[in-house]
Amino acid sequence: MIVPVFNTFFHGRTPEIRNKIYGTLTILVLTGKMKATVGGRRVDIPAVWWEKGKVAAIDQTLLPDRVKIVRYSDYREVAKAIKTMVIRGAPTIGATAAYGIALAAAKNEDIKKAAKMLRATRPTAHDLFYGIDWMLSHLDDPVASAEDFAAELIERCKKIGENGERLIKNGSMILTHCNAGALATVDFGTALAPMRLAKRKGKEFFVFVDETRPRLQGANLTSWELMEEGIDHAIIADNAAGHYLKSEIDLVIIGADRIASNGDAANKIGSYEKAVVAKENGVPFYIAAPISTFDLKISGESEIPIEERSQSEVLQIGKQRIGPRGAKALNPAFDVTPARFITGFITEIGILKPSEIKKMA
Amino acid sequence: MIVPVFNTFFHGRTPEIRNKIYGTLTILVLTGKMKATVGGRRVDIPAVWWEKGKVAAIDQTLLPDRVKIVRYSDYREVAKAIKTMVIRGAPTIGATAAYGIALAAAKNEDIKKAAKMLRATRPTAHDLFYGIDWMLSHLDDPVASAEDFAAELIERCKKIGENGERLIKNGSMILTHCNAGALATVDFGTALAPMRLAKRKGKEFFVFVDETRPRLQGANLTSWELMEEGIDHAIIADNAAGHYLKSEIDLVIIGADRIASNGDAANKIGSYEKAVVAKENGVPFYIAAPISTFDLKISGESEIPIEERSQSEVLQIGKQRIGPRGAKALNPAFDVTPARFITGFITEIGILKPSEIKKMA
Repeated sequence: MIVPVFNTFFHGRTPEIRNKIYGTLTILVLTGKMKATVGGRRVDIPAVWWEKGKVAAIDQTLLPDRVKIVRYSDYREVAKAIKTMVIRGAPTIGATAAYGIALAAAKNEDIKKAAKMLRATRPTAHDLFYGIDWMLSHLDDPVASAEDFAAELIERCKKIGENGERLIKNGSMILTHCNAGALATVDFGTALAPMRLAKRKGKEFFVFVDETRPRLQGANLTSWELMEEGIDHAIIADNAAGHYLKSEIDLVIIGADRIASNGDAANKIGSYEKAVVAKENGVPFYIAAPISTFDLKISGESEIPIEERSQSEVLQIGKQRIGPRGAKALNPAFDVTPARFITGFITEIGILKPSEIKKMA
Repeated sequence: MIVPVFNTFFHGRTPEIRNKIYGTLTILVLTGKMKATVGGRRVDIPAVWWEKGKVAAIDQTLLPDRVKIVRYSDYREVAKAIKTMVIRGAPTIGATAAYGIALAAAKNEDIKKAAKMLRATRPTAHDLFYGIDWMLSHLDDPVASAEDFAAELIERCKKIGENGERLIKNGSMILTHCNAGALATVDFGTALAPMRLAKRKGKEFFVFVDETRPRLQGANLTSWELMEEGIDHAIIADNAAGHYLKSEIDLVIIGADRIASNGDAANKIGSYEKAVVAKENGVPFYIAAPISTFDLKISGESEIPIEERSQSEVLQIGKQRIGPRGAKALNPAFDVTPARFITGFITEIGILKPSEIKKMA
């Protein structure tokens, strides 16, 4: 990711010129805030970026064992990477789709066709549609527009971190679910941004990381991000969250994929259970999300489509098959947490109560 | 398992005579009610039984891929099998420990030492202590006593099935958690007994089977039992239970490991979450358990010890390691569902409300 200051400089230049400049700026291309070890070197890296005419990203399906960078020069490959979750996380998907449109534009391909294919990759995340719509109305310099989109997203996540960081105290016991980290949001994270900033301020706290079946993004992505950041944490089976909400956890921060105007929020399957049990135990339950995740056109839960993903995500864990041969599985990828279970939304403009969302419009 | 009618016949005979009789009764030894395919043959089989001077059992760690029968001639092996969950499920553990005492007695070993070792295998299940205590007060013919203990348990489970079967209607959508089936209770099951009997009565219904991380007893054991029984079901990630409780599930039946006199019930980790979300959605939440699971000496949740098991159960799923190298995990094996979330207890003497438990004493 090019730091925002360079975007103005790049804006309006042809892709050829841009790529020449990038060639001399490789070090800056990796100026992210997420820490990682790539090829033995410690780097600060974003989840997805534009690199010499290609979309570059961390292959999230290989984490935590290996940090592999994938590079795509065709928007169809980008669409496939989103669909197969090589690149995942609602805001990261939005930025990736924006870069995908930029790829199509750079090769003079049919933008509408590209937009249609990218839009069809995942049905639940609002950021995907937001990123695509934004590109369609900023086609004068598509690469710069996609860069601007990603840079603004990072800036918003940083502000989410600053606004949410105040909720974390020395000794806080925090629960998070799935991965709403830098991997999911290009950089900083949404739910993890407050933890990242609190750690850098020297606060000590502990994070319970739901492993987040079926795809284990908590165990494989969030734990990896927290470990790279030096934040004390433990992975727990999703089933154990209730037990710890009753006894030890004093704060829940998760992300969201889509938030309706009444405050109902779709997020990774299991979020709803945690919210209900948090409320039962008087534990504050926060959703961290940029304004782009709010979909004010929809009024509530009934209008949020829930993606049903493949049975094999449940029945096959890496190399391990589970269940008897021939067993069936059901695999809803998201659930919706009604607004009444949500203490507040940590956004880039402050912490909002569900009742305050409508004012945003 | 010898059918109860033979127990009177055996009672008081020496182990040598008993074993000779067993030799001619192999077919009866496998007169269980759980269906399985062993070595290509369809059999009706219990989870654990006495066979020619040995404790025989299904190795539950190899299910659902393989039905292997293990045989132990030393109580220390039995203790190890309970500890490593080769044999598991609270009532099955109780019967297995009883057979373990019988083994020690048959070989003239120190019974108190055997009782102490068996008692130390698992800390939460009340049936374990119940089975051992029962043996210590019935040492005149230990093998017959252990047989009586198991036979009575099966009879109680059958009655639990008859009492609970009435809750299941044509079209019922049922949630269950972990395995409270025949594997867990020597035969019939507790939570699965009502489903088994409802199916045999011709009722059609659907079961959502929580996979039950970390050890996946739902996916690997309950799904296997239901499949052998021909009961329509699907495995779901534990995270998905809340979503379906909000929309489709109309009945929850699970088992329990220990129930206090006020109705607080310890069961597999995650049970508490399901109970809270069931109540939130007005879905009746039943616990099926024999009277032996009630521990009237303890008044409530604070007196129930929770077993913390190895981190590796969370971080290793069969052949698949999860999480980054060096990640920590926390692994409480049970949680406690307070009585206010429990609609009723399906027991061999009827369906009791939490407030009716104290009358039992």
